[in-house]
Amino acid sequence: MSNNEERQLDLKDIRSEIDVIDKELVDLFEKRMKLCRDVAEFKFKTGKAVLDRERENEKLATLTSLAKDDFSKHGIEELFTQIMSMSRKYQYRLLASKGLNDTLEFNFVDRLWKDDVKVAYQGIPGAYSHEALRSYFGEYVEEYNVPTWRKAMEDIRDGRADYAVLPIENSQAGAVGDVYDLLMEFENYIVKYVDIKINHALLGVKGANLDEVKTVYSHPQAIMQSREFLEKYDWQEVAQSNTAVAAKKVSELNDKSKVAIASIKNADIYGLEVLAEHINTSDVNTTRFIILSRSKICKKDANKILISFEVAHESGSLYGALSHIIYNDVNMTKIESRPIPNKKWQYRFFVEIEGKVDSPGVVNALRGLNAETINMRILGNY
Amino acid sequence: MSNNEERQLDLKDIRSEIDVIDKELVDLFEKRMKLCRDVAEFKFKTGKAVLDRERENEKLATLTSLAKDDFSKHGIEELFTQIMSMSRKYQYRLLASKGLNDTLEFNFVDRLWKDDVKVAYQGIPGAYSHEALRSYFGEYVEEYNVPTWRKAMEDIRDGRADYAVLPIENSQAGAVGDVYDLLMEFENYIVKYVDIKINHALLGVKGANLDEVKTVYSHPQAIMQSREFLEKYDWQEVAQSNTAVAAKKVSELNDKSKVAIASIKNADIYGLEVLAEHINTSDVNTTRFIILSRSKICKKDANKILISFEVAHESGSLYGALSHIIYNDVNMTKIESRPIPNKKWQYRFFVEIEGKVDSPGVVNALRGLNAETINMRILGNY
Repeated sequence: MSNNEERQLDLKDIRSEIDVIDKELVDLFEKRMKLCRDVAEFKFKTGKAVLDRERENEKLATLTSLAKDDFSKHGIEELFTQIMSMSRKYQYRLLASKGLNDTLEFNFVDRLWKDDVKVAYQGIPGAYSHEALRSYFGEYVEEYNVPTWRKAMEDIRDGRADYAVLPIENSQAGAVGDVYDLLMEFENYIVKYVDIKINHALLGVKGANLDEVKTVYSHPQAIMQSREFLEKYDWQEVAQSNTAVAAKKVSELNDKSKVAIASIKNADIYGLEVLAEHINTSDVNTTRFIILSRSKICKKDANKILISFEVAHESGSLYGALSHIIYNDVNMTKIESRPIPNKKWQYRFFVEIEGKVDSPGVVNALRGLNAETINMRILGNY
Repeated sequence: MSNNEERQLDLKDIRSEIDVIDKELVDLFEKRMKLCRDVAEFKFKTGKAVLDRERENEKLATLTSLAKDDFSKHGIEELFTQIMSMSRKYQYRLLASKGLNDTLEFNFVDRLWKDDVKVAYQGIPGAYSHEALRSYFGEYVEEYNVPTWRKAMEDIRDGRADYAVLPIENSQAGAVGDVYDLLMEFENYIVKYVDIKINHALLGVKGANLDEVKTVYSHPQAIMQSREFLEKYDWQEVAQSNTAVAAKKVSELNDKSKVAIASIKNADIYGLEVLAEHINTSDVNTTRFIILSRSKICKKDANKILISFEVAHESGSLYGALSHIIYNDVNMTKIESRPIPNKKWQYRFFVEIEGKVDSPGVVNALRGLNAETINMRILGNY
């Protein structure tokens, strides 16, 4: 028998021993979960909180003292932190099944109401926000523009608008941090999202041609996204607050040496000519816009939920929070962190999960997160 | 005996039963870990990879088939995913103790070399980046400015500069996404960070006074940060690429109706007068700057490590990755996600942990992450 075969046999033997141990572990685990059901019943009858940090800490101290060495001690701590966390999640689930999940009062609707509504967007006609608005609400909705995202949030809060359209993320540039901050500041809800493909064109006044251009106006991000195209020229770049603002400016300046980078729709809106199409580098550049409402409504076919929470400033708290999502078989599609205003280097997390706020797994996950994180909020089911 | 006392006794009884089970679980767990040591020995001798996904999947299938019901099935899956992950981490630790951690070739230094060095910063004199540079390298270092962050990264890569100073995060506005993207694109290393308190002043030309002001120039973020102050006036706001650029512009325009928001140091640099001090809202507004080098060096008193990695596009992968950090008792201080260029809605994670790249817990965590995530990189130990 070769040395290698001997080792193969060794590995097989060790693994059969592990298999025996694992079966015993399964037995014990199932017995333990049954007892947890009894504890849950007790807690339900007495209104006692599921999380009893003191009892858990005592328990960890006792069990780790049984360990034969330091490494083992650490492993036991990890194992039982996990087992107790599973027990808590089991208890949240039992409590949820008794109807104690009354916090998620969303109003489920077949479709969003689009008739006789007013919709706000930030920027001016031709902005990508405007395109997002049109793509969802169509051409005939009552729309109006506001100078800032904040104003849009205020307008829906105060009833001046029924919906607002705001960018939340770009597939290249990432999250729009300020919009996340506004989601926290206001109690408006995301009811829908719209993805708009970003496709920049180079626009100039009638008669302009590439050889005469000296200055290009656009939003800094659009300039960056068109870098490969711009490198062929030696133009001065002037930052504008918005691509549509750049197009409008070029139209007003009426100077053949000045061009704008903006979506091709701006050519019609501001009477400009298209000097070059599709000048952005990436083909998959897409911006996601959210549609917000002050009503806590949720379309019946919604399948994404955005939640936010803070965690204690200690090792493992974020991990512990995420375990509620994973354990309930809920898919996590995104995680963002934002600084908490006026708290230096402390963060709030934004997590997007898949599902509906009334599906059992989601209810359990949210219940657990609500009990064990700080300031948990549901920002919309869309 | 009152009903309540009866219930108290019930809870006590259930808990003693749980205690008995838990002791048995500890025994079995320790036995299992001993067997894992043997498996690690085998894998070390044969060069077999620690992670054997096929074996793990088979094992999970067998064990979950023992479950008495669906909930239990789920619990068992969770429990053994955890136990097997712990076993892997144990094996990585054993392998590391055998000297197989040769990937982290950092050069440990007592201090960063500051004599005869050239340091690049983005912007113009008076920019907060410049202030960060001065605060670490002092007044007499050979410094020069570049127009973009990218140019700064290129200059250290190509040896034109020894260090570059770039902003990475603001305590109010959050991460500077573009700098994170540049960290991925270049192979430069973070060697130090410097926190600079953001303190905006309102600057005008000699003889200017608040009543005559019509236009304010600054970076959009500085304008936003001074919103409360600005609300008292009705000034036109003009965005500039940088606060120092705004100060320079106001100085050049030499017009009493035009002012800039910038740090007070710009008054001296551009011969301006201070019309108002500390006009930003928050008292804790701080920007963190990183100092980058092309050498893989690490100060002996460094205590933060920035790593980046991608995870498979499936539920629980991020959670699994973070478990390496948590299990090795490593403190996680930050997590950021950035879109992966040209892959729509896929993310790369940036995680900041505490420690040194040569401490055992960190080595284990990094080894595990390297084996089980995609494109893991260490961006600096600072």
